Amino acid sequence: TYDHSYSLSSRTTSEELLRKLNEQRDIIALMEVKMKEMKATVRQLRITEAKLREEIREKDRLLSMGVIRKKYGM
Amino acid sequence: TYDHSYSLSSRTTSEELLRKLNEQRDIIALMEVKMKEMKATVRQLRITEAKLREEIREKDRLLSMGVIRKKYGM
Repeated sequence: TYDHSYSLSSRTTSEELLRKLNEQRDIIALMEVKMKEMKATVRQLRITEAKLREEIREKDRLLSMGVIRKKYGM
Repeated sequence: TYDHSYSLSSRTTSEELLRKLNEQRDIIALMEVKMKEMKATVRQLRITEAKLREEIREKDRLLSMGVIRKKYGM
């Protein structure tokens, strides 16, 4: 009975470990999806940032032209 | 000997499962750190985007004032 009991306990433990293992695998899969989404978001935000900085450079150029025009009465 | 063999095999499996379980736990911990970093990056990029858009609005305001000044010779 000891062997049987140990064997059963052992099996139960293995089943619990397997269940836990599968739970963790699901968590990892979900986190991978989430990380992929976040990477896409970061990439998109960096593209937006570069575009906005370029837009600011262009407006600064226009503004400085206005200042020059005014200074020299053009 | 069959029981012994089964018991041993069972224990080996449990040890393997435990090892795998700890590996996955480490992976999850690393992914959590990585996700925390990415969340901070996204938050920072959104703040930067808002700041740049505000800067563009201000320059647009200055540019439209220049156009109005020019139009009315002010």
